[in-house]
Amino acid sequence: MISFESDYIEGCHPLILKRFIDTNLEQLSGYGADHYTAEATAKIQDACCDPLAQVYFLVGGTQTNQIVLDTLLAPYEGIVAPETGHIAVHEAGAIEFTGHKVLTLPSHEGKICPQELEDYCAMFYADGNHEHMVFPGVVFLTFPTELGTLYKKSELQEIRQIANKYGLRVYLDGARLGYGLMSEECDCTLADIAALTDVFYIGGTKVGALCGEAVVFTHQNMPKYFATRVKQHGGMVAKGRLLSVQFDTLFTDDLYFEEARHALKMAKKLKEGFEAKGYEMTYVSPTNQQFTILTDEEVALLHEKGFRFSFWENLPDGRTVYRFVTSWATLESNLDALLEALPEREQA
Amino acid sequence: MISFESDYIEGCHPLILKRFIDTNLEQLSGYGADHYTAEATAKIQDACCDPLAQVYFLVGGTQTNQIVLDTLLAPYEGIVAPETGHIAVHEAGAIEFTGHKVLTLPSHEGKICPQELEDYCAMFYADGNHEHMVFPGVVFLTFPTELGTLYKKSELQEIRQIANKYGLRVYLDGARLGYGLMSEECDCTLADIAALTDVFYIGGTKVGALCGEAVVFTHQNMPKYFATRVKQHGGMVAKGRLLSVQFDTLFTDDLYFEEARHALKMAKKLKEGFEAKGYEMTYVSPTNQQFTILTDEEVALLHEKGFRFSFWENLPDGRTVYRFVTSWATLESNLDALLEALPEREQA
Amino acid sequence: MISFESDYIEGCHPLILKRFIDTNLEQLSGYGADHYTAEATAKIQDACCDPLAQVYFLVGGTQTNQIVLDTLLAPYEGIVAPETGHIAVHEAGAIEFTGHKVLTLPSHEGKICPQELEDYCAMFYADGNHEHMVFPGVVFLTFPTELGTLYKKSELQEIRQIANKYGLRVYLDGARLGYGLMSEECDCTLADIAALTDVFYIGGTKVGALCGEAVVFTHQNMPKYFATRVKQHGGMVAKGRLLSVQFDTLFTDDLYFEEARHALKMAKKLKEGFEAKGYEMTYVSPTNQQFTILTDEEVALLHEKGFRFSFWENLPDGRTVYRFVTSWATLESNLDALLEALPEREQA
Amino acid sequence: MISFESDYIEGCHPLILKRFIDTNLEQLSGYGADHYTAEATAKIQDACCDPLAQVYFLVGGTQTNQIVLDTLLAPYEGIVAPETGHIAVHEAGAIEFTGHKVLTLPSHEGKICPQELEDYCAMFYADGNHEHMVFPGVVFLTFPTELGTLYKKSELQEIRQIANKYGLRVYLDGARLGYGLMSEECDCTLADIAALTDVFYIGGTKVGALCGEAVVFTHQNMPKYFATRVKQHGGMVAKGRLLSVQFDTLFTDDLYFEEARHALKMAKKLKEGFEAKGYEMTYVSPTNQQFTILTDEEVALLHEKGFRFSFWENLPDGRTVYRFVTSWATLESNLDALLEALPEREQA
Repeated sequence: MISFESDYIEGCHPLILKRFIDTNLEQLSGYGADHYTAEATAKIQDACCDPLAQVYFLVGGTQTNQIVLDTLLAPYEGIVAPETGHIAVHEAGAIEFTGHKVLTLPSHEGKICPQELEDYCAMFYADGNHEHMVFPGVVFLTFPTELGTLYKKSELQEIRQIANKYGLRVYLDGARLGYGLMSEECDCTLADIAALTDVFYIGGTKVGALCGEAVVFTHQNMPKYFATRVKQHGGMVAKGRLLSVQFDTLFTDDLYFEEARHALKMAKKLKEGFEAKGYEMTYVSPTNQQFTILTDEEVALLHEKGFRFSFWENLPDGRTVYRFVTSWATLESNLDALLEALPEREQA
Repeated sequence: MISFESDYIEGCHPLILKRFIDTNLEQLSGYGADHYTAEATAKIQDACCDPLAQVYFLVGGTQTNQIVLDTLLAPYEGIVAPETGHIAVHEAGAIEFTGHKVLTLPSHEGKICPQELEDYCAMFYADGNHEHMVFPGVVFLTFPTELGTLYKKSELQEIRQIANKYGLRVYLDGARLGYGLMSEECDCTLADIAALTDVFYIGGTKVGALCGEAVVFTHQNMPKYFATRVKQHGGMVAKGRLLSVQFDTLFTDDLYFEEARHALKMAKKLKEGFEAKGYEMTYVSPTNQQFTILTDEEVALLHEKGFRFSFWENLPDGRTVYRFVTSWATLESNLDALLEALPEREQA
Repeated sequence: MISFESDYIEGCHPLILKRFIDTNLEQLSGYGADHYTAEATAKIQDACCDPLAQVYFLVGGTQTNQIVLDTLLAPYEGIVAPETGHIAVHEAGAIEFTGHKVLTLPSHEGKICPQELEDYCAMFYADGNHEHMVFPGVVFLTFPTELGTLYKKSELQEIRQIANKYGLRVYLDGARLGYGLMSEECDCTLADIAALTDVFYIGGTKVGALCGEAVVFTHQNMPKYFATRVKQHGGMVAKGRLLSVQFDTLFTDDLYFEEARHALKMAKKLKEGFEAKGYEMTYVSPTNQQFTILTDEEVALLHEKGFRFSFWENLPDGRTVYRFVTSWATLESNLDALLEALPEREQA
Repeated sequence: MISFESDYIEGCHPLILKRFIDTNLEQLSGYGADHYTAEATAKIQDACCDPLAQVYFLVGGTQTNQIVLDTLLAPYEGIVAPETGHIAVHEAGAIEFTGHKVLTLPSHEGKICPQELEDYCAMFYADGNHEHMVFPGVVFLTFPTELGTLYKKSELQEIRQIANKYGLRVYLDGARLGYGLMSEECDCTLADIAALTDVFYIGGTKVGALCGEAVVFTHQNMPKYFATRVKQHGGMVAKGRLLSVQFDTLFTDDLYFEEARHALKMAKKLKEGFEAKGYEMTYVSPTNQQFTILTDEEVALLHEKGFRFSFWENLPDGRTVYRFVTSWATLESNLDALLEALPEREQA
């Protein structure tokens, strides 16, 4: 069985396991006071071109969104996010659990439109009753989005200006950050992300780690007693090495970006392979998630040949979208087999 | 430098790393739907002699206490715990963060006295105003306690009866469970713990894992939609293998218990070595944490020779208690070096 | 100055003040244990034709929505409400404050469409990832809605069936319940409301009381230790008489309904007066809130003559909707003055 | 039946009801925008000798404690209170409901000892693990205490200095403030309270109002968007007149203090009457709550003659303390009857 279901179905990059072995019997202080935390932090500061960036390692994505948003927001503030965003739909209420409302804007292939953000904020403050409403506090961006799309640098700049105008903070969910930054279509660098957001996270879980996300506060704005608040949310890890050794490895010799480049190369090949056989990709995704419409027969055929991929959504016209995901671990031979198995379509 | 500061300063048992390597390129479903989760669960059910036990793997101890207690309790209920318990003092308010009060009883070397629990409950329900107070909902036991002490099986039975009488659930924090169960002084089995509690957890982090705690619901009483609630608390891990592979390894060929026996052998040697040199141990700890009073000179001397251990507390008489902890990873040669370095005291 | 801004701008019905004076020096137990609470409860049970209904008096509407919804819902559940509903927009996040998400459906003049509710639930349970989402737990209806409209009895019956099918509870916000039930267009009785919902509240604040809402649990389903939970939410009143004396008065000799009939008579006259002068009412409101589009000149003229009313919303075409509200206290002479002052429009 | 059970068993001062009648048909804006709110605020500022004090009216005491403490505290902070304090025991977890821990100090007849507060804070910051603990954020004082006792001005000054040293805010629960300030034993003025605390509340419910507490922020430190947060907690009242008219009345012509003086005169007579008949008062209460030990026979006798009072607590020696409370409404003839009915004791 060969799966393209997600980018969290494999283990981790072998160099990480090697590193765990090499450091295993070293006695290290807990709770992030180990020297690998310091070293990984320095490497991430370097990669962000931000020597003062404050870095904190957490275990998973929902946890990271929950903790960072809750500590960034005042209690009367909510999060502005696209209505199809993971945070608005698929976090099981983890945001509301901490008392904050998700305020939704229309989704444009997974992205917020800056003008609609501006209008939302303008209308909010123009409303005489706005003190009876939830204040927009953070604008939530995913990069790449749940649909594989990317914000342009100019869009991020516009959003930054709107945020400055209305006192919003900009948070960027980088669960698949590497797969965005290394895309041919990406016109942003990690340093741009660091400069244009207030806080973002560098996803490890989906980009080669066993677990772990690196939260980066870029304007000396880590919330006061952040470690205490992480513990209060249940997110503190006793053996900080679990996370620091992984990120230290990922940010040594550009491993993180190299992994991403492999996944993107595979995604491009996958996309071109599908298109060559007459399939149209559903969103304009230049990253490691590719979407296409398949018939029930095509799905059955691929399943029978041992391939796995994800149901994505039913369209109003009755057709169904599926997702294929590549990662740092995708074997080219498996991809070749998939493309081989894919039935040729009659071209229109 | 040789440290006896805690049982979370080393990495993990080498067999766990080996297992990560062996399974690394296997494609596995996320969120606990992998087959290692099923296998580890079966092994834990066996070890508990409870084929119907419901097992869920979480990352860390504070998280486990927070999630399990919040999902066990009704909103009007609190947790009865000894006043010196970790949960009452050192969780940074993680329990209150989910809306529950910790109701404290006196601590008897880290333990609750069953009679005081009975009195507390009786007085609560006798109070005409008790509907204006927080209801006792869960009794919180640590096994072994923060002071290394152990409940007798008879004490657990008494507490069980009181709990039944007043509608309390019994929760046992087993962060160091192995070190308790394998102690010569322990008259309980894992099956006894499973039978006498409503839910407990088998600590991995402090007993050989890189991270991970196995929560065991023993009476088909896992709260409804528990996985949803774990996610809501930010505790769900995408790559379930991170936890399942570790616990599958720990519960293969009794590795978990073998590790614990090593730590206990080292602890006993440490204790006898200290006593032989004229030191008195502070609590009657038959487990892997040993406490003793040291003078400033003795501390300075040991520090200078490269040994590390933990400050524990200042006594009212001005003397200071220190903690020495052994683990699955303690090298006997390091222990010998410590005992060698320890200055002989004049015997009284 | 004469105001039609809202139904909470006047004090309370004079009979309530008379009753406060008559009972003032009576010594009464606190926290709802007074005999007026028992008497008001009995009268409300009678009015609902539900001798077992459980009644609890709270101070205000946001508080009532917050407390009842939080205690009705499991932690993994949210509230299905129309997107324009007060609860989704104008409660300052009071619902999310208690950890629950508001799940929105399209608004049809303030109402939920039963078929859309059915589709929402069906799609939710069909989604393989629904355990990563917030479960629909309560369907939230306002009667009359924020736009003055009313659910038909047949719609409530449909919603009840859908709720039964998917395990939802039906909650009806009756802040202006009297103004709905006494409307000529209403085909429901109070007994119908009681039979078709799980819990609803009879609004006092907007229907003649100084404050107070009577929550009615209609299926012996008052949450366990409800009083304790009310206190925990900060909603318990020491002098229960503040609320019970008012509701006892309102439900003596049908005062509550008589007040509502007066307001509706005034609303009808207002509507007919506007229409007679060439104004079109914006929504089909058969209750005490009337909406119409006014030009800036018309607004200025009415303001100048001393009349007050509420801005409601800007339409996409640039025109503006205003709200005029009548109540138990509306003086017919004031209404006549308003209609007199209203400039005649050229009829199309 | 004549009751001395509490100070919330009567209605309200007749002048308040008169004022409700006089203002009843005045049309007033909601949510605190009415002119009575402005006038009552000005009168309270005057009474506090603090023309910049920020005043907000809430309905009840638990609500006030919950909202003010939650908005004053950072999420990582808790409340330092005496262990017997109402807030630590009898608020049904309303404080923990908002995520904050109550950190207890020993109670000295209901009061905190300043030196113990200093020691607590010093020890907290000296503890190397304090970032794993709940930070002391507010010190909670009750004036008068639940036992009727009063802090000396010098104690409040000491506590203020300790608070300044450790960054604590000082909150004073004045549910019975009038009965404290007017006591012969009180060496503080309302202006002293305003100067020495960060926020306090002037209790209305127990001092002549039907409901209502006036929160006073004394250092321009009302939390940002306080009204929004009050609404979020469910505490906003639509008809602000309910509270403002009452406080405007209470602070006109010193009515609030006059009421308190009457209650204290009655309390003194009650105390002297009990002592004259050989009873000893349990605490040194110079305020309107008086405590004494009664035998079962004495209780039965008084009950039989129609008198009511509150059970307070069982002492370890088996004897029982009862509470007698006077108020603005206590009739001297009723008190005379009680003292008449009280059996004479044999003097020791």
